[in-house]
Amino acid sequence: MKEIHDRARKLMKDFCKVCKICDGRACVGEVPGMGGLNTAASFKNNLAALATVTLNMRLLHEVVEPSPHCTVLGYDLDMPVMAAPIGGVSFNMGGGVSEEAYIDAVVSGSREAGVIGCVGDGVPPFIHEAGYAAIRKNDGYGIPFIKPWEGDELDEKLEKARETGCTTFGMDVDAAGLITLRQMGRPVSPKPPAELKEIIARVHDWGAKFILKGVMTPDEAELAVKVGADAIVVSNHGGRVLDHVPGAAEVLPGIARVVSGQIEILADGGIRDGVDVLKMLALGADAVMIGRPVSIAAVGGLQEGVATYFSTIKGQLLQAMVLTGSQTVKDITSRTIFNG
Amino acid sequence: MKEIHDRARKLMKDFCKVCKICDGRACVGEVPGMGGLNTAASFKNNLAALATVTLNMRLLHEVVEPSPHCTVLGYDLDMPVMAAPIGGVSFNMGGGVSEEAYIDAVVSGSREAGVIGCVGDGVPPFIHEAGYAAIRKNDGYGIPFIKPWEGDELDEKLEKARETGCTTFGMDVDAAGLITLRQMGRPVSPKPPAELKEIIARVHDWGAKFILKGVMTPDEAELAVKVGADAIVVSNHGGRVLDHVPGAAEVLPGIARVVSGQIEILADGGIRDGVDVLKMLALGADAVMIGRPVSIAAVGGLQEGVATYFSTIKGQLLQAMVLTGSQTVKDITSRTIFNG
Amino acid sequence: MKEIHDRARKLMKDFCKVCKICDGRACVGEVPGMGGLNTAASFKNNLAALATVTLNMRLLHEVVEPSPHCTVLGYDLDMPVMAAPIGGVSFNMGGGVSEEAYIDAVVSGSREAGVIGCVGDGVPPFIHEAGYAAIRKNDGYGIPFIKPWEGDELDEKLEKARETGCTTFGMDVDAAGLITLRQMGRPVSPKPPAELKEIIARVHDWGAKFILKGVMTPDEAELAVKVGADAIVVSNHGGRVLDHVPGAAEVLPGIARVVSGQIEILADGGIRDGVDVLKMLALGADAVMIGRPVSIAAVGGLQEGVATYFSTIKGQLLQAMVLTGSQTVKDITSRTIFNG
Amino acid sequence: MKEIHDRARKLMKDFCKVCKICDGRACVGEVPGMGGLNTAASFKNNLAALATVTLNMRLLHEVVEPSPHCTVLGYDLDMPVMAAPIGGVSFNMGGGVSEEAYIDAVVSGSREAGVIGCVGDGVPPFIHEAGYAAIRKNDGYGIPFIKPWEGDELDEKLEKARETGCTTFGMDVDAAGLITLRQMGRPVSPKPPAELKEIIARVHDWGAKFILKGVMTPDEAELAVKVGADAIVVSNHGGRVLDHVPGAAEVLPGIARVVSGQIEILADGGIRDGVDVLKMLALGADAVMIGRPVSIAAVGGLQEGVATYFSTIKGQLLQAMVLTGSQTVKDITSRTIFNG
Repeated sequence: MKEIHDRARKLMKDFCKVCKICDGRACVGEVPGMGGLNTAASFKNNLAALATVTLNMRLLHEVVEPSPHCTVLGYDLDMPVMAAPIGGVSFNMGGGVSEEAYIDAVVSGSREAGVIGCVGDGVPPFIHEAGYAAIRKNDGYGIPFIKPWEGDELDEKLEKARETGCTTFGMDVDAAGLITLRQMGRPVSPKPPAELKEIIARVHDWGAKFILKGVMTPDEAELAVKVGADAIVVSNHGGRVLDHVPGAAEVLPGIARVVSGQIEILADGGIRDGVDVLKMLALGADAVMIGRPVSIAAVGGLQEGVATYFSTIKGQLLQAMVLTGSQTVKDITSRTIFNG
Repeated sequence: MKEIHDRARKLMKDFCKVCKICDGRACVGEVPGMGGLNTAASFKNNLAALATVTLNMRLLHEVVEPSPHCTVLGYDLDMPVMAAPIGGVSFNMGGGVSEEAYIDAVVSGSREAGVIGCVGDGVPPFIHEAGYAAIRKNDGYGIPFIKPWEGDELDEKLEKARETGCTTFGMDVDAAGLITLRQMGRPVSPKPPAELKEIIARVHDWGAKFILKGVMTPDEAELAVKVGADAIVVSNHGGRVLDHVPGAAEVLPGIARVVSGQIEILADGGIRDGVDVLKMLALGADAVMIGRPVSIAAVGGLQEGVATYFSTIKGQLLQAMVLTGSQTVKDITSRTIFNG
Repeated sequence: MKEIHDRARKLMKDFCKVCKICDGRACVGEVPGMGGLNTAASFKNNLAALATVTLNMRLLHEVVEPSPHCTVLGYDLDMPVMAAPIGGVSFNMGGGVSEEAYIDAVVSGSREAGVIGCVGDGVPPFIHEAGYAAIRKNDGYGIPFIKPWEGDELDEKLEKARETGCTTFGMDVDAAGLITLRQMGRPVSPKPPAELKEIIARVHDWGAKFILKGVMTPDEAELAVKVGADAIVVSNHGGRVLDHVPGAAEVLPGIARVVSGQIEILADGGIRDGVDVLKMLALGADAVMIGRPVSIAAVGGLQEGVATYFSTIKGQLLQAMVLTGSQTVKDITSRTIFNG
Repeated sequence: MKEIHDRARKLMKDFCKVCKICDGRACVGEVPGMGGLNTAASFKNNLAALATVTLNMRLLHEVVEPSPHCTVLGYDLDMPVMAAPIGGVSFNMGGGVSEEAYIDAVVSGSREAGVIGCVGDGVPPFIHEAGYAAIRKNDGYGIPFIKPWEGDELDEKLEKARETGCTTFGMDVDAAGLITLRQMGRPVSPKPPAELKEIIARVHDWGAKFILKGVMTPDEAELAVKVGADAIVVSNHGGRVLDHVPGAAEVLPGIARVVSGQIEILADGGIRDGVDVLKMLALGADAVMIGRPVSIAAVGGLQEGVATYFSTIKGQLLQAMVLTGSQTVKDITSRTIFNG
């Protein structure tokens, strides 16, 4: 990983310092860029919330070769991890690689590592076009995320995404509120439950599944169940849309308490290594999304970089499973967490 | 804003570093100046108290174009924000602009931005004279604050302030205890309820309203209701009169619990951006006052600087309202705050 | 004070940096010297415990010219403050002034400021000799503290101290455990209640009073009442005898709860300014002792330095009394403290 | 100690900075080396957990010459302290001394100081060979720890260890999960209770005792009792196997609550001085293990270094016993700890 990070540090110069611990301090307010909005409190809260969680180490058991395999949204994954949808290499990551090369690295590298990659959306159009191309190249093995556009743009994007052959569609409603996009005549906005219900019904008609990203309260998690979503992603959008939102790990247990078992729960925000993955599962997630570290690995090492990063994560997760006595991901529960 | 801050940094040299985050660390003990008294704990507490508040982000709703409009003390405001009464450019801000230019920028810039500015009081007399002139120029659209002088000085000031055509009068009782003023033969002091009641009755006779600034406990908030004040300002005077007072955001909920609905509640202390405004409303305020950032904008950009600053705040507040699902300021409640 | 501190900084070079905030960080482990033992956790805890206390600011009342006057141990004091017993200029403070000049400054300066000074004990003998001389010079107006020696040494010291004409005797049992003294054949040790009872009875026979310094638990405070002490000092000996003891302000409320009204309670540890004095009173103390800041003032400005320091403290205390609505020290209670 | 530390700093260059406070910050992630794994959170938690514990200082009693003597696992010890099993000088400590010289210093120095030393295990074989030689040289006075190998290796090691003449055997199950060892064909793994029961029965047949190191939860402490272990060591392996495990001092009280009196409880992690020893006893330990500081003393001063370090610890423990009124180690209880 050191080599990959060194290369990324050069290519992302002025956009990302590729810090030893990626915690939002060095890039406060850098949006566009890789940072958190304004004071970056939401970004930092993601890290801080995970840091307060400590684990029950257990060694008197038979778990020697655990299995992190899982099935999420119908995908068989080598571990409960996905690459989060991030795009915009030119204005967020310094443009050291092309959008096409970048997103192909994410999707192909994830697939190579036995997990699955998501692709983002935005302005200009080459962001989603590059992402859709990468999914098509991978025979539909990738998840397109669409911004919560108003009106026709949303419908058109869904149709275009469908052509990738994907079996799951995502929407990051947490991208709403970007007034700049509205001012550019490309408004994104929160989505009323009724409208979401229609969109999800259409996706279901296509035989596909639907992920709703950006749920941060128990009441909206229940709404997500009601409108028929197959999964939610607990996420504050990497701290990039609203300052002073709690960390995902902070709100996750409250959300899991009300919707666990009714909908698949993904968590996104501040996950840096395999132990963080285990923590999120213990707090109630069925799987996690990883953002910035994957982007950095993609810029620094393309497909191989992404695969190497996930391989590192998997090694750490395996060791953490052994040391907490977790044979399968189902054994990772609240009992895995130390409670004062 | 960057340009405005750069100019302010030059003009306020040795008095204010115009830090990235204005939190009282760089100017500890600088009174006179822009700092907090002694260890600046009260100043820092204002920031720290707000920082502990995190928000419930919600995206599944119909709030796309929220309205921050409100009516406070009879004023129709574009958002629930006022410029706090601060004066003394020569000894607090380095004298890079004149008191007249400064306070006119605050009052006119606030008006231009659809909010309202307050003006301060003090020694020497040009402080209140400059302030009153600015209000007169703005057709009485501004709020004069008078220090809690003993005896005749108070009466004279009220009469002079009345001539500005203003419809609201304020008194910052939190300025009491400045023993230096007493030693100069210009004593200010706490105000017994009976005396306040008389003053307020007189103001009411004039058909005007009265704001009592410097209420930090529920019992004194109830006293403020009893003596007939129209509004209180929860404020520790920017941490400039007593060290080790809690932050305004810390005491606000307890005060709101006992007087909400009986009196208008303003909060002042540590508000830096639109999200902070939303937090204060969620904690129980009807509106907020902003101090140092407005002064810096006034020094750095005069009327345009102040208007630009408020415009930035408004954009942030709007985005925060969208992302918390708040159509109007009445929708910003305790439900907007994350509770562990 | 700046001038006094500058001079002290020169004279105490290598022994005390005379930091802006005297909090034990710059002198970790410097015993002898001015620091806290080992990691200085006990020293730092004194500061940290006081820092967590915040005040209820109140302005709607008649307190304009409060009085901090009080009677403690029969002394009429201008404010509830004493100089703590500290000696050993040569090995603790760099020897920039003589022990005689130093302790005379403390005792005479305290008296000049309307408070009272204590003098310390130790090896070599010139420490207590200088202290006793200073008390004699001040007509017995000063309090000699004697270390908890074993056997004859204690009796001899009491007799010598009696000759100063003092009306109160103190013992700092918190000095016990200094194994080095024991190894030098000058053992100090904890004192069993029975032995203390005898000592106190003797002092009472002389018509004098007795202060027991170093009480940090409610059970030992009750023992102090039982053996007849007139006052206790809640103190961890400035963090110089045992690492990781709580701050005085942390244990004070628990102690006040069980012995308040039965014995006079002094508090010592981390008090730096007048607001800290008010905090200790609000937490249950009848008066406070101040250590390092007085020593620094004595080294830097002799009698005038000490008097100036106390005058500063008094100004801050007066302002804090006005701003919390406390006419007398009896009005400073738990109601003065903000409770979450 | 200063001289010893200076020499160690030179010899351990690039491996250990021999910091003033050994808290895991300067060596984050340095495994191999002296650091904690990954973010070193587990290492730091050991220190942080101890730091939150503060003590009840008591001086009104008869404890003047306390005795820290104790009997642990049948050993008469001058104080309840052991040297933790650490090996691998060449890759962990820079190789400035030989493995043989190092481990002999630990075992002989511990014995000289009236305590007992443990020796580690690992790859390459000279680690345990050097350790066993040191125990033999000390007439069996030392405790061999064996890693939780799979299959024959474990049996062989037990037999070899038996030849040292030792009367206690230890196993650090917390070493499990080191996937690297597995990949080298030398697998270590968690131990199922049934297998442990057999091993312990064999050791008991030899008339020896068995210590299980790496218990961090109450449920596994109960398992340890069930399988017949004579003692457990509450330890997160110095933070070197799993990131984000709580500090030993954090989990110790919960463990002591369920197994105290049924099994001897040792605690390991973050103990730096005699006050830390007393804290661990107060939290429920019967004795403690000290790791890094002993290694540093061994590298810096060989046998004399280790003996000097333990002598320092003992002096601090004695003083802490006097100042908390603890005549024997049995008097160090929860009453010794300050409870808010």
